[in-house]
Amino acid sequence: MSPAPFADRLAALVEERQSQLCLGLDPDPSRLDPSSTTPEGSAAERAGHAVADHCRWLIGRAGPACVAAKPQLACFERLGAPGWAALERTVTAAREAGLLVIADGKRGDVPISAAAYAQALFGSTPTPWGDVAGLGADAATVNPLAGADSLEPLLEGAAEANAGLFVLVRTSNPGAADLLDLPAPEAPLFELVAGLVAERADRLMGECGLSGLGAVVGATEPRHLSRLRALMPRSIFLVPGLGPQGGRAADLGAAFGEHPASVLVTASRSIADAPDPAAAASELRAELWALARG
Amino acid sequence: MSPAPFADRLAALVEERQSQLCLGLDPDPSRLDPSSTTPEGSAAERAGHAVADHCRWLIGRAGPACVAAKPQLACFERLGAPGWAALERTVTAAREAGLLVIADGKRGDVPISAAAYAQALFGSTPTPWGDVAGLGADAATVNPLAGADSLEPLLEGAAEANAGLFVLVRTSNPGAADLLDLPAPEAPLFELVAGLVAERADRLMGECGLSGLGAVVGATEPRHLSRLRALMPRSIFLVPGLGPQGGRAADLGAAFGEHPASVLVTASRSIADAPDPAAAASELRAELWALARG
Repeated sequence: MSPAPFADRLAALVEERQSQLCLGLDPDPSRLDPSSTTPEGSAAERAGHAVADHCRWLIGRAGPACVAAKPQLACFERLGAPGWAALERTVTAAREAGLLVIADGKRGDVPISAAAYAQALFGSTPTPWGDVAGLGADAATVNPLAGADSLEPLLEGAAEANAGLFVLVRTSNPGAADLLDLPAPEAPLFELVAGLVAERADRLMGECGLSGLGAVVGATEPRHLSRLRALMPRSIFLVPGLGPQGGRAADLGAAFGEHPASVLVTASRSIADAPDPAAAASELRAELWALARG
Repeated sequence: MSPAPFADRLAALVEERQSQLCLGLDPDPSRLDPSSTTPEGSAAERAGHAVADHCRWLIGRAGPACVAAKPQLACFERLGAPGWAALERTVTAAREAGLLVIADGKRGDVPISAAAYAQALFGSTPTPWGDVAGLGADAATVNPLAGADSLEPLLEGAAEANAGLFVLVRTSNPGAADLLDLPAPEAPLFELVAGLVAERADRLMGECGLSGLGAVVGATEPRHLSRLRALMPRSIFLVPGLGPQGGRAADLGAAFGEHPASVLVTASRSIADAPDPAAAASELRAELWALARG
């Protein structure tokens, strides 16, 4: 039986856990505990094991206050094949903790390659020896620069798997101003990207009224939030940039639509680096939930 | 001893082999020969082995007419950890055939994640069990949507490794018109991206006068080529879109600068699907070389 649409699965979890929090998993192998127990093997294999164990530990602590986990693919890829195996173990651990998994790889390419990314993220790949399952992510972040036809195979793959997509609309880094804020020619580029998203939102619509065709919208420029919400009324916003990047939870009110699951806030370092990750996640969960009720 | 800058290594190979051809490696596991000899294992492991063997075979046939190989990361990622291992074997095979390796993943993210991609592509990652080497690519394709600060860690990583970067300036798919061709507000967005590249070209400059900070420029809209060459006089252009995508080698004259290594043309299916890949590559090599001699 195929799962419910991503938007509906998220909406149910948000209500159940009274949380809009997404646990960012950006493991830094240089900060692993050298006394971690790992099987014998190469440095990459040992680090891969320790990374997966660390992510499982963090999910165990902070996961109950969250509805989703967002592994940053770059952090795993840098360990090669053992890093990819650690990513797969981390996806399993997140799933076992009842979390939705958002693969954060910002993939995007011309259609034929985008179709291969869709197989890697949501689908499977036929081979003469049987189908090879991809990551099995519930959603993924994607880069729209190459245009609508480059998003299409990802959208098709997501629709088939009842998964979600978060299109980069306005990232949280200062450099986002360089291209995304350009007038192109009347409205900023990010508003045009928002239009691409809104036009296709019905393709991943859930029964809860939210679309799994969402948008990455940084917390660092809250002045854009009400405009983006007006442009994408049905889309779930994935909001990075809290804490170390300078965004503040209190400024996110305008990002919320009517549904409490209309915003998913990601936090990585502010949870992972806290003396007590469980307490840090709980506190942020409560702050966001109060804001959404606001 | 650190290698010469990417631009100089490429320039030397282009002269030596009289070739501007880059072999695109986009292996499709569904088309593998089911009678391929693979070690026992899971479908993913068997397909990974067969993919690496196929790429090595193709490199053996077509490689001598080429100067670089460009593995499409999506095609390997869809096989999970065994796919990443196949990618590593393919990089080794390309290197053994004397080819430069361009990792085609179109990566791009906020600075902290871009730094992790730089480690994965060009550098290494420190761990308590020793440094873990990344892919060791000679160059990589990157996505500039998140702005200049998102390119910076990749540029730093490339400079340290004397590697190259190819920034997506104007992709070869029809959808490229959706964002990259927008007036933003006076010039098209892709011209502004070209400006980002040109301003930083000296960071990866070789003694040959070419910069390893290059640009992906599709063959499908040759009317843009002379403008892009004027905007980025020193950059190496990586040109996809020949053959099945509709671009024609004969239209690429305006892409060339003074140096014969100023253009690198990628061909994937038109070589891999030819009855005789070696002959197909040789023919295309000769056509391009004649064009460059203009």
